[in-house]
Amino acid sequence: MDKCRIGIAGLGRLGKVHARNIAFRIRGAELKAACSIVPEELDFAKSELGVTNVYSDYRKMLAEADIDAVCVVTTSKEHCWQIEAALDSGKHVFSEKPLGVDLAQCKQAEAAVERHPDLTFMLGFMRRYDKSYSYAKKLIDSGRIGTPYMVKATGIDPESAVQGAIRFAKNSGGIFLDMAIHDIDLCRWFLNSEAVEVYAAGATFKHPEFKEAYDDETGAAMYRFANGALAMVHVGRTAPYGYHVETEIIGTEGTVRISAVPAKNLAEVYGHDGVLTECVGSFPERFDDAYLTEMEEFVDCVLNGKKPGVSVYDGTKSTAIAYATTEAWKTGKAVRIE
Amino acid sequence: MDKCRIGIAGLGRLGKVHARNIAFRIRGAELKAACSIVPEELDFAKSELGVTNVYSDYRKMLAEADIDAVCVVTTSKEHCWQIEAALDSGKHVFSEKPLGVDLAQCKQAEAAVERHPDLTFMLGFMRRYDKSYSYAKKLIDSGRIGTPYMVKATGIDPESAVQGAIRFAKNSGGIFLDMAIHDIDLCRWFLNSEAVEVYAAGATFKHPEFKEAYDDETGAAMYRFANGALAMVHVGRTAPYGYHVETEIIGTEGTVRISAVPAKNLAEVYGHDGVLTECVGSFPERFDDAYLTEMEEFVDCVLNGKKPGVSVYDGTKSTAIAYATTEAWKTGKAVRIE
Amino acid sequence: MDKCRIGIAGLGRLGKVHARNIAFRIRGAELKAACSIVPEELDFAKSELGVTNVYSDYRKMLAEADIDAVCVVTTSKEHCWQIEAALDSGKHVFSEKPLGVDLAQCKQAEAAVERHPDLTFMLGFMRRYDKSYSYAKKLIDSGRIGTPYMVKATGIDPESAVQGAIRFAKNSGGIFLDMAIHDIDLCRWFLNSEAVEVYAAGATFKHPEFKEAYDDETGAAMYRFANGALAMVHVGRTAPYGYHVETEIIGTEGTVRISAVPAKNLAEVYGHDGVLTECVGSFPERFDDAYLTEMEEFVDCVLNGKKPGVSVYDGTKSTAIAYATTEAWKTGKAVRIE
Amino acid sequence: MDKCRIGIAGLGRLGKVHARNIAFRIRGAELKAACSIVPEELDFAKSELGVTNVYSDYRKMLAEADIDAVCVVTTSKEHCWQIEAALDSGKHVFSEKPLGVDLAQCKQAEAAVERHPDLTFMLGFMRRYDKSYSYAKKLIDSGRIGTPYMVKATGIDPESAVQGAIRFAKNSGGIFLDMAIHDIDLCRWFLNSEAVEVYAAGATFKHPEFKEAYDDETGAAMYRFANGALAMVHVGRTAPYGYHVETEIIGTEGTVRISAVPAKNLAEVYGHDGVLTECVGSFPERFDDAYLTEMEEFVDCVLNGKKPGVSVYDGTKSTAIAYATTEAWKTGKAVRIE
Repeated sequence: MDKCRIGIAGLGRLGKVHARNIAFRIRGAELKAACSIVPEELDFAKSELGVTNVYSDYRKMLAEADIDAVCVVTTSKEHCWQIEAALDSGKHVFSEKPLGVDLAQCKQAEAAVERHPDLTFMLGFMRRYDKSYSYAKKLIDSGRIGTPYMVKATGIDPESAVQGAIRFAKNSGGIFLDMAIHDIDLCRWFLNSEAVEVYAAGATFKHPEFKEAYDDETGAAMYRFANGALAMVHVGRTAPYGYHVETEIIGTEGTVRISAVPAKNLAEVYGHDGVLTECVGSFPERFDDAYLTEMEEFVDCVLNGKKPGVSVYDGTKSTAIAYATTEAWKTGKAVRIE
Repeated sequence: MDKCRIGIAGLGRLGKVHARNIAFRIRGAELKAACSIVPEELDFAKSELGVTNVYSDYRKMLAEADIDAVCVVTTSKEHCWQIEAALDSGKHVFSEKPLGVDLAQCKQAEAAVERHPDLTFMLGFMRRYDKSYSYAKKLIDSGRIGTPYMVKATGIDPESAVQGAIRFAKNSGGIFLDMAIHDIDLCRWFLNSEAVEVYAAGATFKHPEFKEAYDDETGAAMYRFANGALAMVHVGRTAPYGYHVETEIIGTEGTVRISAVPAKNLAEVYGHDGVLTECVGSFPERFDDAYLTEMEEFVDCVLNGKKPGVSVYDGTKSTAIAYATTEAWKTGKAVRIE
Repeated sequence: MDKCRIGIAGLGRLGKVHARNIAFRIRGAELKAACSIVPEELDFAKSELGVTNVYSDYRKMLAEADIDAVCVVTTSKEHCWQIEAALDSGKHVFSEKPLGVDLAQCKQAEAAVERHPDLTFMLGFMRRYDKSYSYAKKLIDSGRIGTPYMVKATGIDPESAVQGAIRFAKNSGGIFLDMAIHDIDLCRWFLNSEAVEVYAAGATFKHPEFKEAYDDETGAAMYRFANGALAMVHVGRTAPYGYHVETEIIGTEGTVRISAVPAKNLAEVYGHDGVLTECVGSFPERFDDAYLTEMEEFVDCVLNGKKPGVSVYDGTKSTAIAYATTEAWKTGKAVRIE
Repeated sequence: MDKCRIGIAGLGRLGKVHARNIAFRIRGAELKAACSIVPEELDFAKSELGVTNVYSDYRKMLAEADIDAVCVVTTSKEHCWQIEAALDSGKHVFSEKPLGVDLAQCKQAEAAVERHPDLTFMLGFMRRYDKSYSYAKKLIDSGRIGTPYMVKATGIDPESAVQGAIRFAKNSGGIFLDMAIHDIDLCRWFLNSEAVEVYAAGATFKHPEFKEAYDDETGAAMYRFANGALAMVHVGRTAPYGYHVETEIIGTEGTVRISAVPAKNLAEVYGHDGVLTECVGSFPERFDDAYLTEMEEFVDCVLNGKKPGVSVYDGTKSTAIAYATTEAWKTGKAVRIE
């Protein structure tokens, strides 16, 4: 195989990012089909992506389209059955996070992946492919900071996007399921261990609508890991300055910190108020390169029979931890994670 | 009164800092007497500070020395009775933190302060007088970041000083009593509320001696506050790069962050490995100005009948929280703070 | 036209960057032919880029290949005639900087461009397409810093690449022609005026080989512009920490500064010596995105009949200024630029 | 001698800084007398500094006051004769910069200093005593950046103070004499060599009043040094963000850069526009510590017979260079400095 022909399912905001990357920016990839239940998204596929092969029925795309792989960017609750169906019809699968919305779904996806050991399955934890995060991982693996024993992670969506989060609050599963999954994955990845206990709390000071939806606009969680390491995670939805993802990995011989200032670019403005660093405004802006790089890895794995860096088990584990965090948050008690 | 004549008790590392400030750098202050049970420290007082009036007996200094005020910089367990004795003999008192090593002691000090409403009592939470922290407080009070709802605080001693901490581990009361009291005070100060629950954990990856002393080299704690705010505190003893105190106060309209990089000064070195910012090496170096400013405030309060910004109750409250944190750490359970 | 079919001339280090972008990362572009006098480069074109249509004779490529445009990445002294030949054979042209190695060549290229007003010509001043520089330009055009009146520009190659520069020193035309052309272009672009006088000097403290070749390892130049603005340019070849490009544009109401620390990425390492920001190692690493973006602009101009942001006159002007700078450097006198 | 009794001449803005330091913050120093032609300043001396011994006649203070040393903080044109008179009456002298307003004056001061080799004379180049600058010097002397071969210096007064500069423009001697003397001294100090040629230019885009006074609001100068090193100096009067002093010393093995962002303190504000670092507002704020440290050094030299780090020759040399810079600026020609 010298071309990986891909069908995409879902062409929302992030689906469009993946679709454009597959269509125009990745060597060895070809966007051959698109599937969506939103007619405008299929129009987009035709006019903007040049994809003539469009479907409103996912199973039909699997059955008919001339594709080697599927890129799943649908709503979270559809991920697992779509992963399973694609694998069972012999397609490689790239799926956006989260793997599933509950553990039963995740286990079902795991089983499907295990049934098809010859097919590539990769989960979209794109932060691992960001050049700063992958560089940090390399430094850490090289021993530069000794043994990592604590991760402090922050992920705050911009205030400018809060109305969408408010509308979605009742169906999001709560702030930890909705927002903390990437941070949880990073903690596991950097600490190379699994979380065994979590304590969590939330706060809402700006938008009472979150409280009304039994959600919170800010969440904080503290984790103990099996190897004795610790993690502190802070997620939120109301950063006035933009999209703030920051991570600090602390080891016995040093610390790596990524993005204490979530700078938009390398320009600083010395103005009447002082020296200003403008900030990135959204996750597609911040992780533009990472979305491309992860898809290049997926295509490389399909074409060359490699194993992706992110497995289906990473999806299950992070989901399990997010659920335990949610329980800790709701009950106000520390929760064991088996 | 146009001069505040001060007797100092304790001339260890920090005692010397206070003594030099009182003796040479503060308008309106005069260092008239010194007391220590260490003969070398009294020699130091004579030769370096020009204090001829030296005592090995604290009560004798109170009785005989021609002083208006006492500066208590002795070991923590002596603070409370020395505060009480000084107040009862009519002296104004500046005391180093912590107020006391247990709550009973703190209450005793509170009672003494309340018995002498006309005498100045001030506790040495010097971080509040650091120019960056006091600036942050002013910004926050001006409404610049809206309502503060989360504090993330870090305080890590340098690895270079770890052997002293190891020797002291069995008598320190544990890492939270020993190290977190300043951070706890800052959380209360910035959030303007009291902690009501704490969850905590420790980790030791580098120096097993801490574990052997039933202590830890790193501590992490998460707090809920009465007004719904949250705090995360990280303390440690093994920063390879120096003394790291960092604080982030997050509000509904913005965040103030102090010292993400604990820079030694304004010089950056562009060398073979990259661009290096060297770090402050110790708390006296980091808070040199703050130690001076807090003592200026104390002297100003004594001379002009003002009330200091830090009260005896700040001492009791922070000690109570540190005790609850220690209990949470030891039991592995979230602990209510009444 | 819905595809721009491109033939590339020159597949050295930078040629490979352009070729990969054209072949794999740009919508609407197709790499149809390659030309090089180095057989290994043609092998590379076949095996790595999938280009079967390869030539060792540039004119033959123009005559035979099924291409709409040519991308010229050959050695500087070939640029002008290749630009002219391509335009005269009806091809659009993207050429790497410098436009030519002397003003006569540049004028010849200008004439060719003027003969073919319907063909796109674009010069590779890629810094203008870097996201930080283009952002700065937008800020400035929006009036954010008032009227720009001074530019301070720095461009230093990494010490790690100095041996190549030493070997090339005798044929480089000297440090200002070799290194300052991008900085000169930026000054003109940001100040929106033309340089009228230059004073310059060089220094060599590390590699006497440069002196032996009548060159210098460091150059400094100061410019007056027609509108009264000033510029200071510092170029060098021996940055121990990596590739350092920094630019400061100072206006009546503020300053924009790009890349005071030439950070490799967003990770900072807190290690035994302090807090370290590692630096970018080379121009392809630093301007990876800019090379892509400028080629996207070129392709967009070809396909949609737009005018590129960089014209042939920008090439002539910057070359004229670099020559005057060289004269100032060699004579030690301020030189008028007509 | 165990106390250095000092009389101060001049109690303007900077005089008050020195007077307070001498009176209250320096061990071994005593402020015994004050002299000013401004009656309010003498009132200030009495009420705020507790100095009863005040004079409106400088020579009378020298003759009558019980002082060991004089601190000269009068207007620039008075410095030299006051230095000479003080030395000739057997007093040690600390003088603010500049040494004199022309070279003849400087030579006269040099002669006076040479007549009294047993008396301490020190010039107030306080930047050398700033902790970042003195740290940089130590790093450089230790070989950390190899051989320094270029200095890039920036000194810009805040726009908020521009009206005072406009009023003073006709009598300031021009921007280079008025503003560049500290930067010139730093170049000499860091490069350990003397300037031999200068080219300079000015620009005025905001306040035409400067042009009307035959002055400029911005100045740029480029220097060649005797050892082959180079320097670029940028001075100005209109920084919107505050007081900006920045210096970069570039060596064969690295660079030290001081204060690329002239931060007010360690707090950063993450607000609606991005991440803001507020800036220092004035030279007394920026160099508060340096003014104290230099005076401590002066007192230490007087009391202990040491030689200060800044000599009278540093004053003459920097003045000579400032004059040559002014000539280059006025004539538009490169000027040799003998």
